[in-house]
Amino acid sequence: MRATVMRNRKLVVDTLPDPEPGAGEVLVRTLACGICGSDLHALKYAHRLVDIARESGAPFVMDPARDVVMGHEFCAEIVDFGPGCQRLLAPGTRVCSMPILMRDDGFRGVGYSNDFPGGYGELMVLSEMLLLPVPNGLGTEHAALTEPMAVGLHAVEKARLTPEDVPLVIGCGPVGLAVIAALKLKGAAPIIAADFSPARRKLAEAMGADVVVDPASASPYESWRQLAAPSDPNAASPMPFPLGPPLRPGVLFECVGVPGVIGQIMRGAPRGARIVVVGVCMEPDQMVPMYGINKELNLQFVLGYEPHEFAGTLENIAEGRVPVEPLLTGKVGVEGVAAAFEELANPDRHAKVLVEPWHA
Amino acid sequence: MRATVMRNRKLVVDTLPDPEPGAGEVLVRTLACGICGSDLHALKYAHRLVDIARESGAPFVMDPARDVVMGHEFCAEIVDFGPGCQRLLAPGTRVCSMPILMRDDGFRGVGYSNDFPGGYGELMVLSEMLLLPVPNGLGTEHAALTEPMAVGLHAVEKARLTPEDVPLVIGCGPVGLAVIAALKLKGAAPIIAADFSPARRKLAEAMGADVVVDPASASPYESWRQLAAPSDPNAASPMPFPLGPPLRPGVLFECVGVPGVIGQIMRGAPRGARIVVVGVCMEPDQMVPMYGINKELNLQFVLGYEPHEFAGTLENIAEGRVPVEPLLTGKVGVEGVAAAFEELANPDRHAKVLVEPWHA
Repeated sequence: MRATVMRNRKLVVDTLPDPEPGAGEVLVRTLACGICGSDLHALKYAHRLVDIARESGAPFVMDPARDVVMGHEFCAEIVDFGPGCQRLLAPGTRVCSMPILMRDDGFRGVGYSNDFPGGYGELMVLSEMLLLPVPNGLGTEHAALTEPMAVGLHAVEKARLTPEDVPLVIGCGPVGLAVIAALKLKGAAPIIAADFSPARRKLAEAMGADVVVDPASASPYESWRQLAAPSDPNAASPMPFPLGPPLRPGVLFECVGVPGVIGQIMRGAPRGARIVVVGVCMEPDQMVPMYGINKELNLQFVLGYEPHEFAGTLENIAEGRVPVEPLLTGKVGVEGVAAAFEELANPDRHAKVLVEPWHA
Repeated sequence: MRATVMRNRKLVVDTLPDPEPGAGEVLVRTLACGICGSDLHALKYAHRLVDIARESGAPFVMDPARDVVMGHEFCAEIVDFGPGCQRLLAPGTRVCSMPILMRDDGFRGVGYSNDFPGGYGELMVLSEMLLLPVPNGLGTEHAALTEPMAVGLHAVEKARLTPEDVPLVIGCGPVGLAVIAALKLKGAAPIIAADFSPARRKLAEAMGADVVVDPASASPYESWRQLAAPSDPNAASPMPFPLGPPLRPGVLFECVGVPGVIGQIMRGAPRGARIVVVGVCMEPDQMVPMYGINKELNLQFVLGYEPHEFAGTLENIAEGRVPVEPLLTGKVGVEGVAAAFEELANPDRHAKVLVEPWHA
């Protein structure tokens, strides 16, 4: 099969042997696969990523010295079945799946593995029991956005929202946009979002943000303070003594993922805020614990999603409960992936680029 | 009055004007006042502490260039009343109070203020409405431990304990010991505690730790893993797929407060752990966000206590529900405070030293 391969810290196009489905596994043809910011990180920091995964006890770890076919945000169609499959879905059925392969001896990551190619190649092997058929009528391109949108839903679930919470989303790349969509779905209001890029602020509005802020011209935290004043001015402060006007609780989503941002958010955050770290910062980072202490901040780091959140997200997209159309800004074949990685560095150009490996 | 004064980054003994109670305020004589690690920090880092307090919107900020009489862990007796007091308690009554003065225009910190001396001086001014009479029969020295023990209770309340949680306390100075006592009070078990100092490990056991670990000879995190194996081996893992044996949830208390410890705990923490940061690290600190992300860690920074936690702690001490006797390791008069600050740097020597300003 043809695939875009991560080889020696570069993306190259090559023809690789077709993967073969094992017991309970299905061979699928990739129809569309999103390029994720984590893939950009992985290309740049593969060794660091692997070291940290090992240290944190991650169950599957790739060897960056060997070939990796990335791509974990996919929609595919069933081609063939390995031994021992239930075959409840017919060949040709379009499916989504969490990018995980369930093997007897443990789990493997599809797209971050030397042995199991992801959606930057024409063919993949998936676990039959994880397949979710794409609901009738939902477009392949929209179904392929299930994975990144599930990340946003999971982050919002981990935030344990209350109706009083006023959310602030810092960074409106694909992760921030998925968080905004999930906040909207959960009824949070007002949703405040901040990004330096005009294009991304426009996308944030399309995904459901009520107020967008350009941090170059106004402090997102000051905007938050103005919007978090309670409608009932006599509402009690959560603190034992008045430390400023009583405000609704703050839930801040870190969706940037570069060093310094967690520290900046801790400095700007209102007293008692919960900070949900969704961005994936691959480098060591600095912070000032006293900001956390003086304001009794809470930091919740999040990763991925749970199976029911993934399945629920596909359902939400199919039912039109979350908008995904605005996210789609480009398409490439395997030859175009390397250039797309370069272009994605420009926040004003793209949100989500889909790889269509069958594409010329 | 005689007092130990923080002046030009040093502790000196001097005679100062007696403080005068304002409206609704009471003049008290200090009977005993604990030396807190925060006071040691404040002497070393006064300017930084003030800068960060200002940036985090703290309501009362001292000027380190002017005199400060520290001391915020006190038991005192009523001497006289300012105008407009209710006088429900008679002169001579022994009282505790949160170290806060309630003024019409806001709050002031007793012991971190240029205007309101704390318990390292013979006399203080307190708000009448915050006074808690020491329950009959409770010794003054034990009542003076209400403040630091309330810090431990608050930290444990913020941890939102469940019966399944297995706590690990990192650092067994006064803060860690107060956390251990509060965990015991809440019925947490087993309580694991770690400290390099043999004397502090002994104190940890006296306060209720079930297992104490010397990090020089064994990993506290490995000890935690062994003890967190659930009694029911079929208990579900909190994760969507097996990433190691299922373990009871981890709640880790950072009670050291020096740079690097939060990062170390994030590295050692089990998947899904909640980390409660009780130690007060005054310097910028480093951490690796990927440890937080890969393990979905939660960091809860905490500060102080709420009024009901403070009052409840005095009650708990009076009723013998939390042990405090082991904490008391020394007493000094105002002349001995500077030397006690030096001695407290040695973890094997002291836990809590009480200042008795009336003492020769």
